[in-house]
Amino acid sequence: MSDEFPRYLFKELDAADPLAELRDRFVIADHDLIYLDGNSLGRLPAATPDHLARLVRDGWGGQLVRGWPTWIDWARRIGDRLAAHALGARPDEVVVSDSTSVNLYKLAAAALDAAPGRRTILVDAEDFPTDRYLLQGLAEARGLTLRTLPSDLDQGLDLATLRAALDDDVALVVLSAVSYRCGALLDLAAVNEAARAVGAYVLWDLSHAAGSVPVELAATGADLAVGCTYKYLNGGPGAPAFLYVRRELQERLRQPIWGWFGQRDQFAMGPDYDPVPDLDRFQVGTPPVLGMAALDPALDVLAEAGIDRVREKGRRLGEAIVSLADAWLTPYGFTVASPRDPDRRGSHVSLHHPEALRISRALAEQARVVGDYRAPDRLRLGPAPLYTRFVDVWDAMDRLRDIAERRSYERVPAGPTRVT
Amino acid sequence: MSDEFPRYLFKELDAADPLAELRDRFVIADHDLIYLDGNSLGRLPAATPDHLARLVRDGWGGQLVRGWPTWIDWARRIGDRLAAHALGARPDEVVVSDSTSVNLYKLAAAALDAAPGRRTILVDAEDFPTDRYLLQGLAEARGLTLRTLPSDLDQGLDLATLRAALDDDVALVVLSAVSYRCGALLDLAAVNEAARAVGAYVLWDLSHAAGSVPVELAATGADLAVGCTYKYLNGGPGAPAFLYVRRELQERLRQPIWGWFGQRDQFAMGPDYDPVPDLDRFQVGTPPVLGMAALDPALDVLAEAGIDRVREKGRRLGEAIVSLADAWLTPYGFTVASPRDPDRRGSHVSLHHPEALRISRALAEQARVVGDYRAPDRLRLGPAPLYTRFVDVWDAMDRLRDIAERRSYERVPAGPTRVT
Repeated sequence: MSDEFPRYLFKELDAADPLAELRDRFVIADHDLIYLDGNSLGRLPAATPDHLARLVRDGWGGQLVRGWPTWIDWARRIGDRLAAHALGARPDEVVVSDSTSVNLYKLAAAALDAAPGRRTILVDAEDFPTDRYLLQGLAEARGLTLRTLPSDLDQGLDLATLRAALDDDVALVVLSAVSYRCGALLDLAAVNEAARAVGAYVLWDLSHAAGSVPVELAATGADLAVGCTYKYLNGGPGAPAFLYVRRELQERLRQPIWGWFGQRDQFAMGPDYDPVPDLDRFQVGTPPVLGMAALDPALDVLAEAGIDRVREKGRRLGEAIVSLADAWLTPYGFTVASPRDPDRRGSHVSLHHPEALRISRALAEQARVVGDYRAPDRLRLGPAPLYTRFVDVWDAMDRLRDIAERRSYERVPAGPTRVT
Repeated sequence: MSDEFPRYLFKELDAADPLAELRDRFVIADHDLIYLDGNSLGRLPAATPDHLARLVRDGWGGQLVRGWPTWIDWARRIGDRLAAHALGARPDEVVVSDSTSVNLYKLAAAALDAAPGRRTILVDAEDFPTDRYLLQGLAEARGLTLRTLPSDLDQGLDLATLRAALDDDVALVVLSAVSYRCGALLDLAAVNEAARAVGAYVLWDLSHAAGSVPVELAATGADLAVGCTYKYLNGGPGAPAFLYVRRELQERLRQPIWGWFGQRDQFAMGPDYDPVPDLDRFQVGTPPVLGMAALDPALDVLAEAGIDRVREKGRRLGEAIVSLADAWLTPYGFTVASPRDPDRRGSHVSLHHPEALRISRALAEQARVVGDYRAPDRLRLGPAPLYTRFVDVWDAMDRLRDIAERRSYERVPAGPTRVT
């Protein structure tokens, strides 16, 4: 045990934590498990099972097709809730729709169509794979150039690198607000301003940012964004995604997947596609009612906490990981693989270790700590301010230290990279 | 009361119905309501609430992210179940994914890419709106010609019309196996053969066919198909869709939305999109676990019934509607607006009446019969063989006759077309 960071101090942090009681708003099925993977799949809100059960029984089972006049508005209603409680967007700018990948395709294509003559797309070389793959597909189909911006595995993209690459040939910049690997948080306002100065659109992937940092899409002048709801937004496995289009751009942009949920007077079922002039033109097919419904109880908890308090606690949880890693893990070959400045970091922290894959497995199997591994050699720890306690961080780091000290991860097969 | 069709005869049909007891496998929340809209939103299977509750509690709540090694296979596992029990496809040809609209976009684009030089897409002018809109978008983006084939509102597309339009400039034919409006069932084998003879791909929309008629994708030599699961497949409101790609085509085709769920060695997260050579290349983003899960109990009931028995009962329910409409409703200005030959009709039947919109509303509000309205002047009645009784059809038609006779629909506002 280290004298510098005694466990009781972390208990005291929990005792003083204004969000501490919100932990009870989540199902904690196994109190011995330390869950630091809320950045991959958020916990189940305690109100969600009954909420879904009622919808299934009374809505689907009872109202049957007569439930649709209610459900059909949910993509927008819940989009507005996301806008208000997580994204800092205005009403009528966020809609729940499809998957993050499909939304990214729709908005990227829309932006490219709106920038004729420009031939370049910029993306962070270390951005989440699906984002890069989608842009490769769009670039290939349109004969455009996808430039991948070199980015530090631990520090994320340097704004100077982006600025140097911006010119009037750039149609679109796609970036994650928070890097999936190292957690680097970009300065949205600075990026939006730099891109706007050369007339390029910016499309943000907010998957690791939404619900963990106040994104402030309106205040930072963001054009376009997409993101998932199953991480810090606690919407459940494979929950539907969202998309954001700044109000002033909605009528000017047109996405490529012309579905009937974007059609003016949808149920007239007219012969030609004639999209509404607003956000709904970015909808496509029938929205997933069960998946959307799960977002309501999850957003209730976030709204009660307030994103600013979530952010503040997230910073401190991250600082705790960094401090304990420095103090306890350095002798065992770990280094912090995330920005050290909490203003430049989202809610998760990565640690570098050559045996990160086996260590992440040993943590789960031997020490009941769930974090995750990300290629090539990162252990990713994602505390979620709504339900992770400071003492959880202490216990997790203590168990990690024990595994490192005993080298018990050497008993774990390295094997191929698997899901999670 | 008509002597020709006494109610007790319909009770006797129910008594002899081998599927009669399966009605108990669905939640019937309101025994006074006659639900003839299973072709829009299928009923809730009785086993679904507990199945979903367990997944939410034990899977999401208990396993948390550790559930993913199980869930990640569901898109394919449930796809195989759809293939076996509803679609007549082989294993590894059907996957659950996205919405019907997005899937149609993906497969239509893939087919167009695989037919370079061909400039024409054919679609039924009366096909479901989203299908036409999507193809308009693809045609416009690629400078292709979308030819809409004239089609009879009551009888559907004549095969001779299609044959006359097929030539070696046709890249793709998109058709619904069962017309959403009139229920006309196309001859899949004949269409596939005619298209193949000129080297064109056929992409089937099976939304109104899957779970109501044995589609037999393999036996009819189908190339491509998409469909929804919330109608006769009883997957719930906005349930995820499926797509089918004939095995021999999978490696040759590449869809335009390059997501990480199509990537070889997905969790290596390599730099460049390198899609698997099989069906998974048609997946995009993280699949909706809750939505997929609801398909299992629904498919259990279908598997127990057997699609051939479902089809046989569906034919007879349809014949009952046609017979009663002829006998009872002709004096009030109704005409059958569906093919009369049950071999050329899916499970739903449309009736034409100039006041169809108000009549459909009066049926629901005054007589507790839920069918639906489709533009311009059709009342659509969709019995579902798994839970609709013959006596339900008799009662519904009796109540409809009463409304027509008393003209009580004149009390109902016509108003704008709404969602149902």
